[in-house]
Amino acid sequence: MSISLLVEPDTSTRIRHAESSDYQTIIAVVNDWWGGRSMSDMLPKLFFIHFHETSFVAERDGEIVGFLNGFFSQTYPDTAYIHFVGVDPAARKLGIGCRLYKHFFDACLRYERSLVRCVTSPVNKASITFHKRLGFTIEPGNAEVDGVQVNRDYDGPSEERVLFVKRL
Amino acid sequence: MSISLLVEPDTSTRIRHAESSDYQTIIAVVNDWWGGRSMSDMLPKLFFIHFHETSFVAERDGEIVGFLNGFFSQTYPDTAYIHFVGVDPAARKLGIGCRLYKHFFDACLRYERSLVRCVTSPVNKASITFHKRLGFTIEPGNAEVDGVQVNRDYDGPSEERVLFVKRL
Repeated sequence: MSISLLVEPDTSTRIRHAESSDYQTIIAVVNDWWGGRSMSDMLPKLFFIHFHETSFVAERDGEIVGFLNGFFSQTYPDTAYIHFVGVDPAARKLGIGCRLYKHFFDACLRYERSLVRCVTSPVNKASITFHKRLGFTIEPGNAEVDGVQVNRDYDGPSEERVLFVKRL
Repeated sequence: MSISLLVEPDTSTRIRHAESSDYQTIIAVVNDWWGGRSMSDMLPKLFFIHFHETSFVAERDGEIVGFLNGFFSQTYPDTAYIHFVGVDPAARKLGIGCRLYKHFFDACLRYERSLVRCVTSPVNKASITFHKRLGFTIEPGNAEVDGVQVNRDYDGPSEERVLFVKRL
């Protein structure tokens, strides 16, 4: 596996496994980090309790500035899934997102999960660019938005999603 | 393990594992089944894709009238968690909810998961009654609402929850 870290990671940010106790801090800021989009309903505490091995936070000067929640698929023994990733807007462009993914990929490799999947909303252009840069490919959908394949009504009515996959 | 089925299950309802293809049908009705509450954001398709062994639907005359999405905790090897359960209001009082839980409990026992956890909103009195009837106990919280222990801000600000646990 190779991941291109296009920026030099800052040395003052530490990545560690997420703990249940991190949830209160993160859920209080998650809508702000998404520019006011209502995201918190999609992030129940269960992801911080039950998926410890595949969930991470980034800490900087004692503050949480990023997190990633993923899990190993129960259905597909070769597959891992990333549900939610966020980085504080004030801490972007430092490679924190890349480092969170790298920790997740390392956990996948330790548990012989060679396929990583995740989805994003087509309005989130930064997310699409980020995943392509990390080596994810976009899966064929049933429609195209701004030249990108999307799956209409994927996560419910009018909830279209871009589907990413990466082989480690 | 003993589960008291307080009503005789109807023979025309069949319980089977949930498939990804069931998602579109269920997500289209889930808010209606909850009396108009906005629930669909809490049920992304991932639960139908990646947790096959622990997710079930109830079918009656070819129609889906109930579903349950659960998973095995990655963090706690003895624990299973039920994320979402719904029964069509027109098909209640037939024991369908009990049968969905029984299938989940059976899956837990096959995989040596002896502890089942789930949470509900304190406004959902029917859910609290249902879980107590199935042998769940309510865990201590940090507040009390109508005589029930609740955890304030559990799933985010103002999102209080009643926590249930059952040993199989």
